[in-house]
Amino acid sequence: MTHTVHGQKSLLARVRRIKGQADALERLIEAGQDLDCGKVLQQIAAIRGAVAGLMAEVLEGHLREHVAAENLTTEQRHEEIEEVVAVLRTYLK
Amino acid sequence: MTHTVHGQKSLLARVRRIKGQADALERLIEAGQDLDCGKVLQQIAAIRGAVAGLMAEVLEGHLREHVAAENLTTEQRHEEIEEVVAVLRTYLK
Amino acid sequence: MTHTVHGQKSLLARVRRIKGQADALERLIEAGQDLDCGKVLQQIAAIRGAVAGLMAEVLEGHLREHVAAENLTTEQRHEEIEEVVAVLRTYLK
Amino acid sequence: MTHTVHGQKSLLARVRRIKGQADALERLIEAGQDLDCGKVLQQIAAIRGAVAGLMAEVLEGHLREHVAAENLTTEQRHEEIEEVVAVLRTYLK
Repeated sequence: MTHTVHGQKSLLARVRRIKGQADALERLIEAGQDLDCGKVLQQIAAIRGAVAGLMAEVLEGHLREHVAAENLTTEQRHEEIEEVVAVLRTYLK
Repeated sequence: MTHTVHGQKSLLARVRRIKGQADALERLIEAGQDLDCGKVLQQIAAIRGAVAGLMAEVLEGHLREHVAAENLTTEQRHEEIEEVVAVLRTYLK
Repeated sequence: MTHTVHGQKSLLARVRRIKGQADALERLIEAGQDLDCGKVLQQIAAIRGAVAGLMAEVLEGHLREHVAAENLTTEQRHEEIEEVVAVLRTYLK
Repeated sequence: MTHTVHGQKSLLARVRRIKGQADALERLIEAGQDLDCGKVLQQIAAIRGAVAGLMAEVLEGHLREHVAAENLTTEQRHEEIEEVVAVLRTYLK
């Protein structure tokens, strides 16, 4: 299934932001003895939020562009749906 | 969109279990001064898990029976998908 | 550990609201053939949000009133904390 | 508040694993036209799980080593607790 170039740019920007946040978290933890738990907790929560935003964008794009695509056989459509179900199960525990 | 009778029975059983859990939680909290926080926290976590299970069953059924239904127009399919997207957004915050 | 009467009233109001939401969900599902998936999904998401709000209120009260209580032995304080850890693990999967 | 050296090593290992997962995700998305949605969704779900594990380890350590520390004034203990409450609110929405 192909994705639009615009979609790709937006996803890459989100992933690179997460990588930057993880770098900053690594430096916070490397502070060792002077580790500030409050800041570490906030940084992890920020990464969690960024990952949730990335998941939402990919899932919505997958549902609208692939699951709803007109030229699919019923079998193909069910395959696309099972990819969504597999991810939903990681959230709905 | 119609649901199978089997699906309905399973969903009703889940909802009634949640109602029973909420009744038990109410009684725990009514204990007032002797309220056991540990038990209350566990009971709320149990209800949360039951609600997640219910959501998973309805979402999966909706995706497989409605979104993937063969006799839909593209517009109808997008409408069904937007119902999924609306729920996903409550989880992906 | 004792809870304030005010806290108890607020918690009971939240639980009763969840019970009311579950009743409404039961009626939606009992509609059988004419079951409206969109409304059912929204109602479950609303219950999930109400349960999250209830959990937040109990957890915060437990942390502030019990875990932070001045007259605890270290052992008692660790017991109170382990109740929080047990609940956190149901969320942090 | 100081953290044990052992704790620091474990946290750094987790963060570096997340960075590696984010690198792999970036390469998946850079595939552009041949982007495999299923693999991207799985990879994001894996990162989400790793971030949850990291959050659990830091929160539990903070609760047991800082919130429960014996030599705290009541005011200091409440400050440590408010850091936990701030993070819980990002989860309990």
